[in-house]
Amino acid sequence: MKIGLLGFGKTGKAVANVILQNKNFQLQWVLKRSTLLENRNAAEFLGVDSEDSGLIVSSASMTVPDLLDKHPVDIIIDFSSDSGIHTYGHYAAERGIKIISAVSHYKEEELQLLQELAAQTVVFWSPNITLGVNYLLFAAKFLKKIAPDVDIVIVEEHFKEKDGISGTAAKIAEALDVEKSEINSVRAGGIVGKHEVVFGFPYQTVRLTHESISRDAFGNGVLFVAGNLTDKTSGLYNFEDILLPYFSTN
Amino acid sequence: MKIGLLGFGKTGKAVANVILQNKNFQLQWVLKRSTLLENRNAAEFLGVDSEDSGLIVSSASMTVPDLLDKHPVDIIIDFSSDSGIHTYGHYAAERGIKIISAVSHYKEEELQLLQELAAQTVVFWSPNITLGVNYLLFAAKFLKKIAPDVDIVIVEEHFKEKDGISGTAAKIAEALDVEKSEINSVRAGGIVGKHEVVFGFPYQTVRLTHESISRDAFGNGVLFVAGNLTDKTSGLYNFEDILLPYFSTN
Amino acid sequence: MKIGLLGFGKTGKAVANVILQNKNFQLQWVLKRSTLLENRNAAEFLGVDSEDSGLIVSSASMTVPDLLDKHPVDIIIDFSSDSGIHTYGHYAAERGIKIISAVSHYKEEELQLLQELAAQTVVFWSPNITLGVNYLLFAAKFLKKIAPDVDIVIVEEHFKEKDGISGTAAKIAEALDVEKSEINSVRAGGIVGKHEVVFGFPYQTVRLTHESISRDAFGNGVLFVAGNLTDKTSGLYNFEDILLPYFSTN
Amino acid sequence: MKIGLLGFGKTGKAVANVILQNKNFQLQWVLKRSTLLENRNAAEFLGVDSEDSGLIVSSASMTVPDLLDKHPVDIIIDFSSDSGIHTYGHYAAERGIKIISAVSHYKEEELQLLQELAAQTVVFWSPNITLGVNYLLFAAKFLKKIAPDVDIVIVEEHFKEKDGISGTAAKIAEALDVEKSEINSVRAGGIVGKHEVVFGFPYQTVRLTHESISRDAFGNGVLFVAGNLTDKTSGLYNFEDILLPYFSTN
Repeated sequence: MKIGLLGFGKTGKAVANVILQNKNFQLQWVLKRSTLLENRNAAEFLGVDSEDSGLIVSSASMTVPDLLDKHPVDIIIDFSSDSGIHTYGHYAAERGIKIISAVSHYKEEELQLLQELAAQTVVFWSPNITLGVNYLLFAAKFLKKIAPDVDIVIVEEHFKEKDGISGTAAKIAEALDVEKSEINSVRAGGIVGKHEVVFGFPYQTVRLTHESISRDAFGNGVLFVAGNLTDKTSGLYNFEDILLPYFSTN
Repeated sequence: MKIGLLGFGKTGKAVANVILQNKNFQLQWVLKRSTLLENRNAAEFLGVDSEDSGLIVSSASMTVPDLLDKHPVDIIIDFSSDSGIHTYGHYAAERGIKIISAVSHYKEEELQLLQELAAQTVVFWSPNITLGVNYLLFAAKFLKKIAPDVDIVIVEEHFKEKDGISGTAAKIAEALDVEKSEINSVRAGGIVGKHEVVFGFPYQTVRLTHESISRDAFGNGVLFVAGNLTDKTSGLYNFEDILLPYFSTN
Repeated sequence: MKIGLLGFGKTGKAVANVILQNKNFQLQWVLKRSTLLENRNAAEFLGVDSEDSGLIVSSASMTVPDLLDKHPVDIIIDFSSDSGIHTYGHYAAERGIKIISAVSHYKEEELQLLQELAAQTVVFWSPNITLGVNYLLFAAKFLKKIAPDVDIVIVEEHFKEKDGISGTAAKIAEALDVEKSEINSVRAGGIVGKHEVVFGFPYQTVRLTHESISRDAFGNGVLFVAGNLTDKTSGLYNFEDILLPYFSTN
Repeated sequence: MKIGLLGFGKTGKAVANVILQNKNFQLQWVLKRSTLLENRNAAEFLGVDSEDSGLIVSSASMTVPDLLDKHPVDIIIDFSSDSGIHTYGHYAAERGIKIISAVSHYKEEELQLLQELAAQTVVFWSPNITLGVNYLLFAAKFLKKIAPDVDIVIVEEHFKEKDGISGTAAKIAEALDVEKSEINSVRAGGIVGKHEVVFGFPYQTVRLTHESISRDAFGNGVLFVAGNLTDKTSGLYNFEDILLPYFSTN
């Protein structure tokens, strides 16, 4: 499967790194705003041994339609910003290219655009695209369904400088109908990232815990999603849509 | 719902304790082998404030058919031993009384008897009847389905004297196709009981953890099962059968 | 060593239970306010097999001087309330009986009385008398000395109904000069009690964790202290005084 | 304080990275065997903003005496191999340069050499030079002294490919007189490194846990040691010698 990547910040690089090392996916190009690494090769830049072309392209020097025609791909993966989708969305949809977006926040305008594009192609969006966090969310919601009266508390740990409640913790709390006051944010040293959901029963406790090791987890999440979109028809999908079918198959 | 209980050891007492405190269930009687507490009242014996009759009956002084006719129940809960089912199974099935067995091990003979009885009434069997452990098992199997290549390791902790691998850990390992060598048994001091399933991904770790606080958790598990059997037709059920329907309802 | 115990509430009973099972200590009597269990035997009441006399005495029927003369002891252990010390303090000190108090809070008045009594006998006071919590406090203070700039966060977990920050967490925070805002209180289900001190370094994390299993831990703490007071001369001691000498001996 | 560094593998680079970012220490040079990065600058190579000279020198192109005379340092930090000490030991000792070695294993021959050099200068050796692991070791030994009969179990977790018991776990076990059979090695995914010592008491559990985030922790350990060797006289020191004085000061 041929992949084009938007965004080459810390997370974009980690995602490129993972794709380059996977033989089932070919990183055709990375599209950046700046011309800084223009025409260099992502694999060579990241020090990865890979045969993927991985061309680094600047949006200043080539238009998106040109890029999609000269270097065709099956999927576009978007780790840029909320404005990214406007630059390539329609061109991709027209060409039947699938879109996987991991942009953190979209405004109403972009959400509507996603819906539009989903009429023509497969569109997937998840603000946190790691398998672990999405599984956690899914499994936690399920336990809450079984035991609606259980006490639920969230503990999340991150490095000292991280401000406010983590976006993931907020999302878990929302999904479980847990008050913000029941989220405990530990900020200490260089902790990469840990989320724990504590289910307190009268005579037993269940804990679901996710620990991040590195941003490369986003790369694996993207490939998991890509692999699960192959047989899908046009439409807008989220991570729960990807996980649910695993239940029906025994 | 009227309940009869077989077994009044440590766990049986804890289960009786929980039933006595729940207003939706009435503990009609406890059937014991010995005549030691004959005709005493379970609530008074356990120091629980309850209006349930909770008569303690010895199998030496009353036959099972007599007991079932004089003190009718809707459900029999069995925390006795593998031989218990032979003493009451047919009498219960004939009368349409549901059977919930939490006996740890059954031999082939008893498993066949359960099948037979299931033609006439609702029969449920689970060797570990806590909600937490069964949820853990279910959620772990699901994650393994999603990520079949993930590394899975089990760590279980119990009090120093506990011999061998815990039955629950062995069951989890079997369900996840994990080698015995991947079960780590920590034995130290008075740890009540903890089971952790570690899922190691390349860039993230997911942990599912169950901690026991007291045996009363078995009581809550029994009542959860009893509540979920009300609309079931004759047949043999296990804990997974009880949990699955929670998925379909959104 | 002969022991007299003040207080026979939940914790007092747990402490009596531990003393009765230890052959190096004899529980001579338990002094209660009410006459409810008057003249019964603590061992028999608690269902413990022990040869200790363990007489349950009501303060209504015998004066403290009479009790100390008729049933002499080496140590008085006080799990009553802040007023307890006034009823027996001077009588004990005059007779050279050691005093171990585990009363949670003393007012200025009692603290002065302890000082006074300490001129005549060995007086020990610790508001939390478990070995584990006191070790945790000691070890945490030591790490803070070594690494004064490390980020410190406290996470404590207790059953849902527990109000406010736990006394132990507050004490740890005070000892480590940690702001109240850095204490996270998790309240869920029936969690017995867990205290974790997280030390966040830039590239590593150290955690010190104490988990309570049952109140009997107080009994073991008392006996540990009693054993370490045998060679002490008159004076007022706390848990740190007991732990420090273990460093000097190699 | 001027520093010279031996070894520029993964750990050596991480250590250089930390030194370059600390204003109290100047990385004068890095001595490597190969000529690969000859005459480049460590700061520039690692992408760190620093004014330290950080010259990368090959042992093929300059002798150690020449290096020490042209680019004098106060401390040599050795992350090379067991043979490294032979190449610079005497030259450093003669010049009164302090030696901090973090080499994992030394044979009898090198241990004797360290003793010899310690007659002339300050020599420090610790096979694991992180503050966290050494604190853990120290605190664990102390708890074992206080409670010699407590059950001790070690659980260590590392990435799937790590063979055998971790060296740190083996060292902890040796220090605490814990059998190898009481070390549980969890190998799963990409876990960076976690060591937990579980102290099981009858009614409570104490856990000391160290989690590694990155190799940079070695750099911080080195600087901690360096800072604590300033006022030391000639002699051979280990990490415990560095930690002990923190007790006496209140």
